[in-house]
Amino acid sequence: MSGLKKTATTSAPIHGLIGERWSPRAFADRSVEPEKLRSLFEAARWAASSYNGQPWIFIVGTKDHPEDYKRVLDCFVEFNQSWAKSAPVVALSVAKLKFEHNGEMNRHAFHDVGAAAATLTIQAEALGLAVHQMGGILPEKAREIFGIPEGYEAVAGIAIGYPGEAHTLPDHLKEPEVAPRERKALNSFVFSGKWGKVAPIVGGKP
Amino acid sequence: MSGLKKTATTSAPIHGLIGERWSPRAFADRSVEPEKLRSLFEAARWAASSYNGQPWIFIVGTKDHPEDYKRVLDCFVEFNQSWAKSAPVVALSVAKLKFEHNGEMNRHAFHDVGAAAATLTIQAEALGLAVHQMGGILPEKAREIFGIPEGYEAVAGIAIGYPGEAHTLPDHLKEPEVAPRERKALNSFVFSGKWGKVAPIVGGKP
Repeated sequence: MSGLKKTATTSAPIHGLIGERWSPRAFADRSVEPEKLRSLFEAARWAASSYNGQPWIFIVGTKDHPEDYKRVLDCFVEFNQSWAKSAPVVALSVAKLKFEHNGEMNRHAFHDVGAAAATLTIQAEALGLAVHQMGGILPEKAREIFGIPEGYEAVAGIAIGYPGEAHTLPDHLKEPEVAPRERKALNSFVFSGKWGKVAPIVGGKP
Repeated sequence: MSGLKKTATTSAPIHGLIGERWSPRAFADRSVEPEKLRSLFEAARWAASSYNGQPWIFIVGTKDHPEDYKRVLDCFVEFNQSWAKSAPVVALSVAKLKFEHNGEMNRHAFHDVGAAAATLTIQAEALGLAVHQMGGILPEKAREIFGIPEGYEAVAGIAIGYPGEAHTLPDHLKEPEVAPRERKALNSFVFSGKWGKVAPIVGGKP
């Protein structure tokens, strides 16, 4: 991705597409080529899912179609609208809550939507695009606006575009934009044998 | 990944790590270098998450530590044990269900665990490793075996190893192993403006 680099500080080597990906709020005032957008959703399509149920749907709006764009943006909480409106593309992910093959609840519906969305972000990184996902959406408003049927549920918002410049953001968002990325230490979440026992493969290192 | 190639048949170009990744059941009889395993979890660490909550925990077992390995394998449903036992590494993902910053339920806990797991699979592909995630686990058994505390929940199983040969699988698993990968058409899940209306960026193409 061009724009501000915030390469992950890692304790083990990781692929560049994973280490360079981050979630900016500043987007360039430039539209995204339709064929690149298509590649993002194509990438999401190939994520793994429970019983290959592929329980993901995406509702997309681009600024080329202002009404479709506004309908998506309106489903974000106000804070997220305040910065996401600078992105040329916004989307909602939606989960299909039941399996097609037996009609039973899919315990992994949200999990698999998350997998598809993460795959989309990595494809975006490969194309020089930036993606910022957000939990702060209004699922019931999305249901009304788009007519999302029973058995489906809006999951998350997604802002997509070319990376922009932090100085274009409102003041209160400038600092988080340039702050280093932070994560919990590996030894706080990779266990073996029993809960809380650090796995030998990460033992001793942060 | 070496082993059987099952490159995705796409309607738009996607990155090789995404297009080549698939979920085999046959694994080579070869252990995974600890530093490579470490890179997998390091990659997962850098996934995006709601409020940067990072609600993922992994419990890992390698055949170098047979007791730890068996404890993980025992949490898989019988069918998954039947093939996953050939993988040199097995793991469980666990979700932290509440946010640390306010103690409220995290609606995106499973979603973000899915994102971390998908990132892990892409890192694995980059290292020539194969990963097969499985929904078929026994969360309450996992809670007992590992002492998973209240507020956390086992999510999915993960088998990791170098790719093997389909002919080593039991007969009933040989055919699915070599069958082409299938996905729903893009125009069945990328909408704009209203539910079911195909997005212009994918319109007309499958």
